[in-house]
Amino acid sequence: MQKGIDRKLKIIPLGGLGEIGKNITVLEYGDDIMIIDCGMGFPEDEMLGIDIVIPDITYLVNNKEKIRGIVITHGHEDHIGSIPYLLRKLDVPIYGTRFSIGLIEKKLLEHQVKTPQLHNVSHGDRVELGCFSVHFIRSNHSIPDASCLAITTPIGVVFHTGDFKIDYTPVGGLPIDLQTIAEYGKKGVLLAMSDSTNVESPGSSMSEGSLTNNFTDIFKRAKKRIVVATFASNVYRIQQIVDAAKVFKRKIVISGRSMVNVVQVATDLGYLTISPELIINVNDINKYKDKELVVISTGSQGEPMAALSRMAASDHRKIELKEGDTVIISASAIPGNEKTINKVINQLYEKNVEVVYDKMQDIHVSGHAKQEDLKLMLTLLQPKFFIPVHGERRHLVKHAELAENLGIKSKNILVASTGDVIELTKTELKTDSKVQYGNIMVDGLGVGDVGNIVLRDRKILSEDGLIIAVVTVDRATGTILSGPDIVSRGFVYVRDNEDLIVEAKLIVKASVEKSFKNKIKDWAPIKNAIRDDLSKFIYNDIQRRPMILPIIMELKK
Amino acid sequence: MQKGIDRKLKIIPLGGLGEIGKNITVLEYGDDIMIIDCGMGFPEDEMLGIDIVIPDITYLVNNKEKIRGIVITHGHEDHIGSIPYLLRKLDVPIYGTRFSIGLIEKKLLEHQVKTPQLHNVSHGDRVELGCFSVHFIRSNHSIPDASCLAITTPIGVVFHTGDFKIDYTPVGGLPIDLQTIAEYGKKGVLLAMSDSTNVESPGSSMSEGSLTNNFTDIFKRAKKRIVVATFASNVYRIQQIVDAAKVFKRKIVISGRSMVNVVQVATDLGYLTISPELIINVNDINKYKDKELVVISTGSQGEPMAALSRMAASDHRKIELKEGDTVIISASAIPGNEKTINKVINQLYEKNVEVVYDKMQDIHVSGHAKQEDLKLMLTLLQPKFFIPVHGERRHLVKHAELAENLGIKSKNILVASTGDVIELTKTELKTDSKVQYGNIMVDGLGVGDVGNIVLRDRKILSEDGLIIAVVTVDRATGTILSGPDIVSRGFVYVRDNEDLIVEAKLIVKASVEKSFKNKIKDWAPIKNAIRDDLSKFIYNDIQRRPMILPIIMELKK
Repeated sequence: MQKGIDRKLKIIPLGGLGEIGKNITVLEYGDDIMIIDCGMGFPEDEMLGIDIVIPDITYLVNNKEKIRGIVITHGHEDHIGSIPYLLRKLDVPIYGTRFSIGLIEKKLLEHQVKTPQLHNVSHGDRVELGCFSVHFIRSNHSIPDASCLAITTPIGVVFHTGDFKIDYTPVGGLPIDLQTIAEYGKKGVLLAMSDSTNVESPGSSMSEGSLTNNFTDIFKRAKKRIVVATFASNVYRIQQIVDAAKVFKRKIVISGRSMVNVVQVATDLGYLTISPELIINVNDINKYKDKELVVISTGSQGEPMAALSRMAASDHRKIELKEGDTVIISASAIPGNEKTINKVINQLYEKNVEVVYDKMQDIHVSGHAKQEDLKLMLTLLQPKFFIPVHGERRHLVKHAELAENLGIKSKNILVASTGDVIELTKTELKTDSKVQYGNIMVDGLGVGDVGNIVLRDRKILSEDGLIIAVVTVDRATGTILSGPDIVSRGFVYVRDNEDLIVEAKLIVKASVEKSFKNKIKDWAPIKNAIRDDLSKFIYNDIQRRPMILPIIMELKK
Repeated sequence: MQKGIDRKLKIIPLGGLGEIGKNITVLEYGDDIMIIDCGMGFPEDEMLGIDIVIPDITYLVNNKEKIRGIVITHGHEDHIGSIPYLLRKLDVPIYGTRFSIGLIEKKLLEHQVKTPQLHNVSHGDRVELGCFSVHFIRSNHSIPDASCLAITTPIGVVFHTGDFKIDYTPVGGLPIDLQTIAEYGKKGVLLAMSDSTNVESPGSSMSEGSLTNNFTDIFKRAKKRIVVATFASNVYRIQQIVDAAKVFKRKIVISGRSMVNVVQVATDLGYLTISPELIINVNDINKYKDKELVVISTGSQGEPMAALSRMAASDHRKIELKEGDTVIISASAIPGNEKTINKVINQLYEKNVEVVYDKMQDIHVSGHAKQEDLKLMLTLLQPKFFIPVHGERRHLVKHAELAENLGIKSKNILVASTGDVIELTKTELKTDSKVQYGNIMVDGLGVGDVGNIVLRDRKILSEDGLIIAVVTVDRATGTILSGPDIVSRGFVYVRDNEDLIVEAKLIVKASVEKSFKNKIKDWAPIKNAIRDDLSKFIYNDIQRRPMILPIIMELKK
C-alpha cells in the first residue's frame, strides 16, 4: 500500500445527496474502492408508471477490478434496495450486521439473484477492504442493527454516521455507542459525513421507549379490534405492539406481504420476540372475539394496495373493520403521501372507527437525529472536515450552517451533489469534477428502458388522452380504401360525443385528400397535416390537447 | 309566509362536507331556497388531467323557481369558483361584501358570463331572501371582507361562521365582531355551522399582526433582491410586504397573473394601499439595484407554472435570481403540495439563494380558527344544534367531539355528508335522505364530459402507455391486406426495442390468421384474441400492462 501523504482520497456519492433515497457512496484510494450502502429511490411525481429508481453505477462498472466490497449501514430500502441490480453487473462481497444481511438475503431470493458473498459483521468488528479498515459501531435507528462506520484510510479516519438517532432508552438493543464515537473524536477524525434528514427539526428525537405508555393507554381503552399500521422494518415498534398484545391478552394477526416477510426474518434472527401461541393465521380471525385481536399491518403511508388501505376501503379479503374498532397509524407521512394517508383516515372515520394518528397523540417517533442530536454527534467527533449527507439540498445547506455554528471552519465544509468527485487530503476538501451519475428508472422488469420521451408521452396521455386516426390508402392512385376511422382513449366518453367523432373523421378525410391532390405522397407530411388539422379542431372545440396519432396503412403489393 | 311551527328547515350541503373545497350549502324552507357560497374543488390525485371540480347542482336546477339568491361569505375560490358554471344554468342574484363581489365580477368577465345581479353588502347589513333574513357579520380570515352569517329563519337563527379566525390585531380592517356574535348567542341560536379546518391544531391561530416584526427583520437583513411568494388573495399579507418595502425603500414588482389581478381589484376597492410610485413594471427591473427591489409573486405552493417556480428553475422570462437574494415563502403547504414546494426550495438553495420558509421562521399564519378559537365561537353562540362544516370527515368528527366537550348534547350534533338532506325543527336535527350530488369534472372547456371510464384509461395510459396493433383485412377472403403494424406510445423507447416490436407483429399476425382459420369473422372476438395474445406476450417479457388497442380496417366495398 502506498503512503497516504501525496495521494488523495476520493469520495464519490452516486446517490443520496440532494435527495432522500438512493444512498450509495464510493470511497476510492489508489487501487482500492469500497462502497457504502446501495439503496433505491422512489420515483418523482413526474416519473409516471415507474416503480423504483436505482443509481447509475457506470463508474463502478468501469472500475470493477478496484472494488473490494460493499458495507451496509442498515437494512432500509434506500440503503439496500439496489443491491440486486448492482449484483447483476458486479460480483462484490457485501458486509453488514446480521439483520441487514438477513433482509438482503430475502431480497436476493425474491430477485433470483445468487451471491455467496454475504458476510455477517457484529458491532465492534472491523472489516479490511484493501487499504480501508471499516469499524462497525452500534447506532440507533428505526430498524435494528444500524451502524455508524469509522473508516480508517491511509490519510485519516472518515466517520460516516449512517442514518442515526440518539436513543438512551431504546426498546430493543442498546443505546448508540457514544463512548467509541467520542474515542474516535478524541484521537482525531479527518472527515465526518452525517445524516441530515431532520436538521430542520429543533430539539432531540424522542426515544422509542417514550411510546410504551401511550400504546398501553390505547390498548387499555380499546373495546374492540385494534389495527396498528407501521413500517414493516420498524421491528422495535412491532415489538411494542407485540408486548402490549401479550399484556392485554390479544392474539396477533400479521397482515401485508412486507410485514410478514420482515417479521419472519426478525423472528428467525432473534430481533423480535413473539411467543408462537400469540400469532394466529388471518383465516382464523373469526374464531376470536374482537377484543381478543390485534392486527399489525402495512399501509401506514396510505399506499393504495397495502393492507390498511384495503381495510379502510372495505376491500380486504379477510379483515373487516367495524364501528368501535381502533386503528393506530404509527408512522408519520413521508412528504408526498399526506393526501393518501388523509384519505385512509377519512374512510376509517366514515366507518366510525376510532383513528389514532400522529396529530392526535404521540404514537410515532422519528428514526433520525434532530438538531440537538446532530450537535452532539459533531461535538463528539470534532472532525476537521465535514460533508452533510442523506438529505435534499435544503437539508445539506442547513446542516452545513449548523456545523459552522459549532466551530467547524466554513472552508472545511462541503455541500456536495450526487456525482461529485470529492477529493480529500489531510489539508483540503474540494470537488471540481463529476463522474457519470443519475437515475435509472425501473418499470416492471425493464431497467433503464423508459426514458424522457416515454415519460413525456405518458404525461400527455395521462392529461388529455389520445386520438388515433387510421386510414388505409392506395398510394399509387391516391385513394382512400378504408376509413378514416377515429379511435380515442382517455379523451372524452365517445358515446356522448358522437358529433365530435363524426366531424373529426371528415377533417381527416379532407386532410388526406388535400395532400393527395397536392401530389404529396410521402407519409410523414400527410401525417403531419392530419395531426395539425385535427389538433386545431379539437383545441378550438374543447380546449384540450390530446395526443394525436395518425396511422396510414398501405395495401401490400 | 307560513308559520314555522310545523314545517322543517332543510339544509342541504351540495359540497364542502367530507372534503375541503367546493363549498355550497342550500337552505330551504317552504317555497324559499337560499344558497351559501358556490365554490370549486381541486381534483383528487386520480383525476388525471382534470382542471377543477364543481358541484352537481341538479337539485338547484330542478328547484330553480324557489331560489331567492346566493350569499357569499368570502372571496376564496373554494367559495366562489363555481359561480360562472352555476350562472350558465341559473339566473340568481348574488350578495356579498365588496371585495368578494369585486373578485366575482373579475371572474365572470374572464368566463364571459354576464350577470347584472351582483349586490354589494356591508357588514351589519341584512339581506332578505324570501323567508330568510341574512345578517352579514364582520369576521377575520386570510382575505379581506369575510363574513359570518346570522340567518333568521321562520324556526330560529341559523348561524354560519364561514371560514374564520379570531384576530385581535389584524393588519387591515377590524377584529371579528364578537359582540354581535355574543348577542345572537344570548338571544338564542338554534343551529350553528362552524369551520372545522384547523380543529386538529391546539391553541389559537396567531394574528396577522404577529408577523410584522419578522418581515421587518428579514427586510433588514436582506442585502440583495427579496422575493415574497404568497397566496394572491391574502391581501393583508401583501399589505405587510408593501409596508416593509416602503420602510426599506424598495420598489415593488408584482409577478404572476392572479397576483396582478387581485392586487388590481384590492387597490381599486381600497383594500390595499400602495403608493403608485412604489410599483414598477417588471420590464424596468434592471434599472434598479438589487437592494432596491422586492418581488411579490405567486407560486407559494410550488405550482410548476407559477412565477416562483419559474424563477427557481431559471425559466422566468424577466426575473433572474442570484446568489445572496432572499426568497420568502409566506404560506404553508396545502396537503398534497409538499413535494412541489420542497422541489422549489431545493432549487433555490442550489442557486445559493437564502430561503425563508415556515419551518425556519414564522412568516405565515393560518386563516382558520384553531381549537381554542373554535371553543370561543361555540361558547359565545351556545347553539342548541350543531353541524361542523368545511372539513374532511376526520375534521368534522373531531369538531363534533369538541362541541360535545363544551356541553352541546351529542344527539343535537350531526356529522353530515355532502348530499344529505338535513332536516331541522325547533326540537330535532336529523338526516335520512339524500339528493343528487357529486363532483362534476372540468377539463378545458368540457364540463362533465370526462367520467370514470375516461379517467381509468388515462390512468392505464399514464402508467404503462399503449400499444396499437393495426391490420387491414378483406373480410370476405379472410386475408390480411396490410399490416399488422405496431405503434406504441409511453411504453418503451421503440428504437432500443425493435426485437420486441418485430415479435409483437408476428403475434398479431398469427392471432388474426388463427381467428380466420377458425371461421371467426366478427371483429370483436378477433380483437379480443389479439389483445389477449399480445398482452400475455408483453407481460411475460417485461411485466408491464400497457393498454392494447387492436384496430381492424376493412376495405370499402
